[in-house]
Amino acid sequence: MTKDTGERFVSYQELQRHNTKDSCWLLIHGKVYDLTSFLSEHPGGQRIILNQAGGEATAAFDQVHSEDVIERTLPPDVCVGVIDKKTMKGVAAPTVATPDELFEQAEKILPLSQIINLYDFELLARKSLARPAWNYYSSGSDDELGLRENLDVYSRVWLIPRILVDVSQIEFRTTILGFPSAAPFYMTATALGRLGHPEGEISLTRAAGAEGIIHMLPTLSSCSLDEMTGARVEGQTQFFQLYVNRDRDVTRRIIKQAEQRGCKALFITVDAPALGHREKDMRTKFVDEPPTEMKGKAVKRDQGAARAIGSFIDPGLSWKDLAWFRSVTSLPLVLKGVQCAADAVLAARHGVAGIVLSNHGGRQLETARSGLEILPDVVAALDAYYATEKQPSGPRLEVFVDGGVRRATDIVKALALGAKAIGIGRPFLYANHGYGQRGVEKAIQILKDELQSVMMLLGAPDIKAIVRDMVDASSLKMHVGPPVINSLAQRAYEPLPLPELSKL
Amino acid sequence: MTKDTGERFVSYQELQRHNTKDSCWLLIHGKVYDLTSFLSEHPGGQRIILNQAGGEATAAFDQVHSEDVIERTLPPDVCVGVIDKKTMKGVAAPTVATPDELFEQAEKILPLSQIINLYDFELLARKSLARPAWNYYSSGSDDELGLRENLDVYSRVWLIPRILVDVSQIEFRTTILGFPSAAPFYMTATALGRLGHPEGEISLTRAAGAEGIIHMLPTLSSCSLDEMTGARVEGQTQFFQLYVNRDRDVTRRIIKQAEQRGCKALFITVDAPALGHREKDMRTKFVDEPPTEMKGKAVKRDQGAARAIGSFIDPGLSWKDLAWFRSVTSLPLVLKGVQCAADAVLAARHGVAGIVLSNHGGRQLETARSGLEILPDVVAALDAYYATEKQPSGPRLEVFVDGGVRRATDIVKALALGAKAIGIGRPFLYANHGYGQRGVEKAIQILKDELQSVMMLLGAPDIKAIVRDMVDASSLKMHVGPPVINSLAQRAYEPLPLPELSKL
Amino acid sequence: MTKDTGERFVSYQELQRHNTKDSCWLLIHGKVYDLTSFLSEHPGGQRIILNQAGGEATAAFDQVHSEDVIERTLPPDVCVGVIDKKTMKGVAAPTVATPDELFEQAEKILPLSQIINLYDFELLARKSLARPAWNYYSSGSDDELGLRENLDVYSRVWLIPRILVDVSQIEFRTTILGFPSAAPFYMTATALGRLGHPEGEISLTRAAGAEGIIHMLPTLSSCSLDEMTGARVEGQTQFFQLYVNRDRDVTRRIIKQAEQRGCKALFITVDAPALGHREKDMRTKFVDEPPTEMKGKAVKRDQGAARAIGSFIDPGLSWKDLAWFRSVTSLPLVLKGVQCAADAVLAARHGVAGIVLSNHGGRQLETARSGLEILPDVVAALDAYYATEKQPSGPRLEVFVDGGVRRATDIVKALALGAKAIGIGRPFLYANHGYGQRGVEKAIQILKDELQSVMMLLGAPDIKAIVRDMVDASSLKMHVGPPVINSLAQRAYEPLPLPELSKL
Amino acid sequence: MTKDTGERFVSYQELQRHNTKDSCWLLIHGKVYDLTSFLSEHPGGQRIILNQAGGEATAAFDQVHSEDVIERTLPPDVCVGVIDKKTMKGVAAPTVATPDELFEQAEKILPLSQIINLYDFELLARKSLARPAWNYYSSGSDDELGLRENLDVYSRVWLIPRILVDVSQIEFRTTILGFPSAAPFYMTATALGRLGHPEGEISLTRAAGAEGIIHMLPTLSSCSLDEMTGARVEGQTQFFQLYVNRDRDVTRRIIKQAEQRGCKALFITVDAPALGHREKDMRTKFVDEPPTEMKGKAVKRDQGAARAIGSFIDPGLSWKDLAWFRSVTSLPLVLKGVQCAADAVLAARHGVAGIVLSNHGGRQLETARSGLEILPDVVAALDAYYATEKQPSGPRLEVFVDGGVRRATDIVKALALGAKAIGIGRPFLYANHGYGQRGVEKAIQILKDELQSVMMLLGAPDIKAIVRDMVDASSLKMHVGPPVINSLAQRAYEPLPLPELSKL
Repeated sequence: MTKDTGERFVSYQELQRHNTKDSCWLLIHGKVYDLTSFLSEHPGGQRIILNQAGGEATAAFDQVHSEDVIERTLPPDVCVGVIDKKTMKGVAAPTVATPDELFEQAEKILPLSQIINLYDFELLARKSLARPAWNYYSSGSDDELGLRENLDVYSRVWLIPRILVDVSQIEFRTTILGFPSAAPFYMTATALGRLGHPEGEISLTRAAGAEGIIHMLPTLSSCSLDEMTGARVEGQTQFFQLYVNRDRDVTRRIIKQAEQRGCKALFITVDAPALGHREKDMRTKFVDEPPTEMKGKAVKRDQGAARAIGSFIDPGLSWKDLAWFRSVTSLPLVLKGVQCAADAVLAARHGVAGIVLSNHGGRQLETARSGLEILPDVVAALDAYYATEKQPSGPRLEVFVDGGVRRATDIVKALALGAKAIGIGRPFLYANHGYGQRGVEKAIQILKDELQSVMMLLGAPDIKAIVRDMVDASSLKMHVGPPVINSLAQRAYEPLPLPELSKL
Repeated sequence: MTKDTGERFVSYQELQRHNTKDSCWLLIHGKVYDLTSFLSEHPGGQRIILNQAGGEATAAFDQVHSEDVIERTLPPDVCVGVIDKKTMKGVAAPTVATPDELFEQAEKILPLSQIINLYDFELLARKSLARPAWNYYSSGSDDELGLRENLDVYSRVWLIPRILVDVSQIEFRTTILGFPSAAPFYMTATALGRLGHPEGEISLTRAAGAEGIIHMLPTLSSCSLDEMTGARVEGQTQFFQLYVNRDRDVTRRIIKQAEQRGCKALFITVDAPALGHREKDMRTKFVDEPPTEMKGKAVKRDQGAARAIGSFIDPGLSWKDLAWFRSVTSLPLVLKGVQCAADAVLAARHGVAGIVLSNHGGRQLETARSGLEILPDVVAALDAYYATEKQPSGPRLEVFVDGGVRRATDIVKALALGAKAIGIGRPFLYANHGYGQRGVEKAIQILKDELQSVMMLLGAPDIKAIVRDMVDASSLKMHVGPPVINSLAQRAYEPLPLPELSKL
Repeated sequence: MTKDTGERFVSYQELQRHNTKDSCWLLIHGKVYDLTSFLSEHPGGQRIILNQAGGEATAAFDQVHSEDVIERTLPPDVCVGVIDKKTMKGVAAPTVATPDELFEQAEKILPLSQIINLYDFELLARKSLARPAWNYYSSGSDDELGLRENLDVYSRVWLIPRILVDVSQIEFRTTILGFPSAAPFYMTATALGRLGHPEGEISLTRAAGAEGIIHMLPTLSSCSLDEMTGARVEGQTQFFQLYVNRDRDVTRRIIKQAEQRGCKALFITVDAPALGHREKDMRTKFVDEPPTEMKGKAVKRDQGAARAIGSFIDPGLSWKDLAWFRSVTSLPLVLKGVQCAADAVLAARHGVAGIVLSNHGGRQLETARSGLEILPDVVAALDAYYATEKQPSGPRLEVFVDGGVRRATDIVKALALGAKAIGIGRPFLYANHGYGQRGVEKAIQILKDELQSVMMLLGAPDIKAIVRDMVDASSLKMHVGPPVINSLAQRAYEPLPLPELSKL
Repeated sequence: MTKDTGERFVSYQELQRHNTKDSCWLLIHGKVYDLTSFLSEHPGGQRIILNQAGGEATAAFDQVHSEDVIERTLPPDVCVGVIDKKTMKGVAAPTVATPDELFEQAEKILPLSQIINLYDFELLARKSLARPAWNYYSSGSDDELGLRENLDVYSRVWLIPRILVDVSQIEFRTTILGFPSAAPFYMTATALGRLGHPEGEISLTRAAGAEGIIHMLPTLSSCSLDEMTGARVEGQTQFFQLYVNRDRDVTRRIIKQAEQRGCKALFITVDAPALGHREKDMRTKFVDEPPTEMKGKAVKRDQGAARAIGSFIDPGLSWKDLAWFRSVTSLPLVLKGVQCAADAVLAARHGVAGIVLSNHGGRQLETARSGLEILPDVVAALDAYYATEKQPSGPRLEVFVDGGVRRATDIVKALALGAKAIGIGRPFLYANHGYGQRGVEKAIQILKDELQSVMMLLGAPDIKAIVRDMVDASSLKMHVGPPVINSLAQRAYEPLPLPELSKL
């Protein structure tokens, strides 16, 4: 027992003994936690915890979590006590590379000045990210058909530029839900930013601020809300992405915090009642079971992923909950993850401020269509709705799209088909990794530069000049043949044998 | 002559002399058979018999056949007599690996705990199955376009999830022909189970029982009907798949047996009046003829496959035979291998209980369309039929689909398009190989797990909530370009030559 | 001067001196020819002649030509005289491998008994044919898109089998232009048969005879008409393919000969007013010019191909010539190379007995559509024509298709779409190479065997049961993406560079 | 100061000291220029200038520029003075390979006589061009989807030849804007000809003249207008391609010069208000910044490309400027780079003489459709316009197409769809490189030869016989799957991992 708080003191030697699956203690920010019963529920898998069992886990913990995540999500009794610092003499403190050291290292692999498109950041990340981090960021669900389709769909839409339009002045500033944005795209919420860079969401939000872009802060951030909102610059807009917790009091508290810290809109994720089956990720998460344990009994598959997330995210969320959200906040509500025209019209009927057409970066339901593919149907359905139905008060809802955007041509295609703005996620994570804020700023600048050039070439001096007639989307819905190839099925298949020819 | 039965005693030494194509005797379960005249008719090819000629063939025989197959299918005079056991002193009994030994071996290559999808089982099987067994299981007909199309067709259908549906309770139990099933899929009949695992169909049926899944027992099983039905657990449902023999008395006897042993429905295979031309299989079956034999005369191709199966399966089977089936059994009749809407309506008119839309795993008619592709047409035609025609008594027939299913997304696509349940075959054979019952159970668990997750993500809490509007099948019938590539044609083609550039 | 004929005697030593481009003499079947001025017109290229200049060329000549080709096609004064045999003492006679030696050799590479489909013959030929022969046989025009499309088009048509049809008796015998055929395919005319096998068209026609298949004899045969018709067996049908010579007397003589020797129909090639640009072939034909010769002057391209063939084939051939053909022969006339519905109707109006839908094996106009692709349009147009127009007397014309057929499924697809019979060319040339007559017979047997099996599986006991409803051809006209890949364009294109990543 | 002109003398030693980014002087044709402030604006990138800093740069300069480009485009004060020749004693004059030496070298790699199609020239160029030159010539914008589509689109259009048409005389001479052309294609304007060959545009225009083909002279030539027009032969037609300068006086002067020097039409480029983002090109242009310089500050991307070209080309150019052009010249006006039917009709309304349907060789707006794809829409819209609207005086405008043409089949496809003539660019640059005029002539001859043959095979004896019914363009607009593959996206994507199989 400590004198002041009534907490128990734990010696380093005692901690060290609890280093197995059967008793798994970790030291994090000076406190000792018993995570034995949580092992099988950890969304990040057991292995990553077991690797730290019986030792100082603060550095590893900080890579993926904000300091308060344990208090927020686990029962209080997982805390065994505080470490007795006297017993730690001679134990070396863990070291983490600084942002500048990481920048130096990335520069040696690929100087930032040599980067000319968003794929370059991805290439660097694929090479230099730790494998579990790369697998977490880059993975999609099942066979990753949806993940790849998100990129490929853009090559089925072709542009129709107009000529002899005065494009000596290009203006692509716009508003998103009424808030000014330097460009018609925003930084969408992505989880676990510190997995790629020690400054995590902080450098992301700073880069967004420097470039006048709106940042949507994630629920599953690895920095705390205070850190993220604290990094905001004067006049910068931040939105907040929300995973709805089963416990509505927790959800209410999170919303209130976001509102109080100045977030301007609430993007409620509606496409994740369960977690997608992401195999790149899964291959690195499983603990190798010793074969002897399995002998003689059927092997039960770890049901971890869906269940674990289920303990945070409410699979019972439904349309009738929208009234409750309205009762606890005055923030504009946006549904993130709408995937068909019928639900878009329902959203309009429920009076939300906006919807994001998205298949969650191909990470949730496999072969759910890309946001771009459903955009024309959604816009047509909303046109019909607003033309004929008695509407709720307020302006027409805004339609956003995310997934697979790598080029300004992608952006203008979505705008031409009726999107108000486009969300971009992974590319900024990849840019943040290694180069930090400077990398993310450059990524944004590349897109702005391309946008300047593309709008000139398209004959569209401003956003409203990017109209439906500027795209040929007649092949949009054709899902035939590659480029989306089932890479597993293809490699599992063995081509027909040829007869063996003798060599004479 | 033996004293008791009047059978002749054969000495081991006499047996050993009959070891050629011209006189080919084998010892199987203590009896000696002269298979010389059967060599060219053996569906499995001559080579596999000749390899055992003049010796003890019981182990090899058991890999593919139930003990009574010779009695059931060959004339009685192929039995030369019983072996004189005195003459076998010092002859080592053949050894077969036990299931546990096989499991250990598979674990060393790929631990069962590491398997996260059905492709993993296929990969293991491709590596560790004996080549003839792999070739028999994995092959399709001709250029295997139909085989691959069965998988690829699913990537031309995309899902349309609904949001904000309460999916906190998922229920995917259903009924098949009125019998309860833990999931909307069943284990379809596959031949020669012991080729891959010594427990053959027994471990398949046990796994099905453990997981609440219905197993359709094959006519061409390598375990006997008694063994298969004996492995049934309390309350488990088994169906029976029937190849119709030319000799209707044989067929009647088989049906009666199946009925008496408790099978609940009869799936009559209607897509195999001849055997498909399966080249992976053929490459390993042919006997190398010495070139000298062929000199001076035209080489007649072994007409074996189609003829051989023709001696068992009746190519004269037709619609008018359905009345006969009804006269010999009260089991519900299902036609397995329906391939167009017209035949589906005919089936309804004949009052069958169900139909399986299938191209027989791509093993029969090459470029016959996949079951999934024809499903919407079939459902539409049946809707029209039941809406307008005077119907036979009884409920609407149930429509099943098989072929190429590897993911729960595949299953929900078929359900959304109107299937009652989905048949799965090869993946369970691959799982059975190496891991035995435990592997098959895990395969079923993987599908259930995926199904749980997919239905949550789709916004469908139960089977009836999976509706037509949840799939975009507009590209379903487009057969253009790859992913189905003609691997033979592609490798036979030699790309245009480039000019040779000198190196300076 | 010789005493008897007034021909000049030429000594071997004199012959040997004329071994250059400027004076190029060859000894062929005992006569000495001066081919200097013919060099640039030789359809087979200069190099192949120059290789024999100043020497005995009989063996090389016989590989591609019938003995009378020089008399038939070149002016008489190219013959310098007859060789003085006394002067040839000690000159070794050229040796040619015998058919049996070639068979032995092919057996060593790939035993005929191992061959299970037509691709296997192609594979053997690709490996063992002399490069110029392979290049001549296998080449298509330009980028070979049409050549490959001929095969690929079949994978865009899918089969719709019917079930529960009595297929215990399969009958695929049919008639072609009223003549009996053992199967609904025929051996189409292919040039230069002896390039691949010393028996050339003779073993082709013998195999056709043995298997009851009709052989269409080519104008550009390397055996003489007498040899080809002499190889006919009792009751065998032969047709004759005709290239129309500018000199109508020559054409009239050829037709008369064919008629007198018993050919039963005249297939007039109408798709070759010029020769296709075949690059595989061209790469081996060009003579390497010494660079010094080209200095200082523009290099004029050899205009050889089109011109050379132009001296034999009449580019002025037109519809009005059909009356002339009728005036010189009573044989049924068939137009070979019809490529659109409009010309098919014109052909019907002109009262021809049949048409072959063909793009000449992809060897003539590049990206001309395959015969199969135009078949439905042609049949529909003919249906309309025969339904409404006042017709010429006689039966409806028969429609044939050739190009790319490798499987019986290909054959039934064409039959279902309305073809009377299918022509097959290259596969028989490849089978003839190496295995000779035995190979060709096996190729035919393979197709018959497949056809037996495919018709059973399709539920079509005879040819007339193969109906339009048995194919889904809805993707037939879609030319998108691969499998037809422009192999030159693809290799000429250099993918975008990635940034160079340093290795740390 | 020089005595005569008041210019300052600069010693070689002084020149040599200004060899850095901070002070960058170059000696060009005897004058010394300070290009320090121009470095970041140079369209060709900084590196290429810095490589010459402080030295004699005439040879490098001449590779890409005509002698007067500095006077024409930079302020006069960049000229520091004239070199003091006395101070250059012992400085070796730079040497450039002569055309004959280059020809010899190319012959060693690939003799011109061996070249049989346009791809062969590209292959040679890819191998032997200096990397920056290859990158400049061959690059397209962004992911080069448009660049590749320009070639691929032709394989989605298939030909429909007619038979039995008298093609003994083929005539493909035509007129372009009323001027005679030996064939229905012209040599379109391409920049920087001397990058590939020291004679640059001169040998291009000479080859065009020798072959009776019209050459469109480029604004961004590396030879001067005088040189290009001086190389014209008797009766040869030259057009002039114009980039419109922000300074209309400059533009007026350029037009006047072109007119006075005998150019017959003015092709105004309307698809380049900004320069495309060409990554092949960019990878070689960037200067490696020392990493130390970037520490501690956000890296601003070089905004060079768009800005630099912006200083020459007027992004404000619009329809109303057409009146001004008419006021300064009587040459027929053609708009180069029209990309949709609406603009084609606008062009007709403005009374221009012609339009070029083009996406600028895939070098400007990425995924802008190919000229061929929009051709049918444009022709249909113009048909409607001329049928119904009150038209300006003068003949119907002529429609040209460029981009991706490599074969005569490509040419006839465009003609059949309504083009008057086809522009070809890169292939002639590649032919000019290495072989010079002789190479370009051969390239033209190859196309003429192919055209002769293709028109015979198509059954079209002259240009007007090439009609709409001769092409099936029903797949023209289908943008699905490859052959256009996103090579960056494909390589950035990492296929799903397979489980690791142990090797036993």
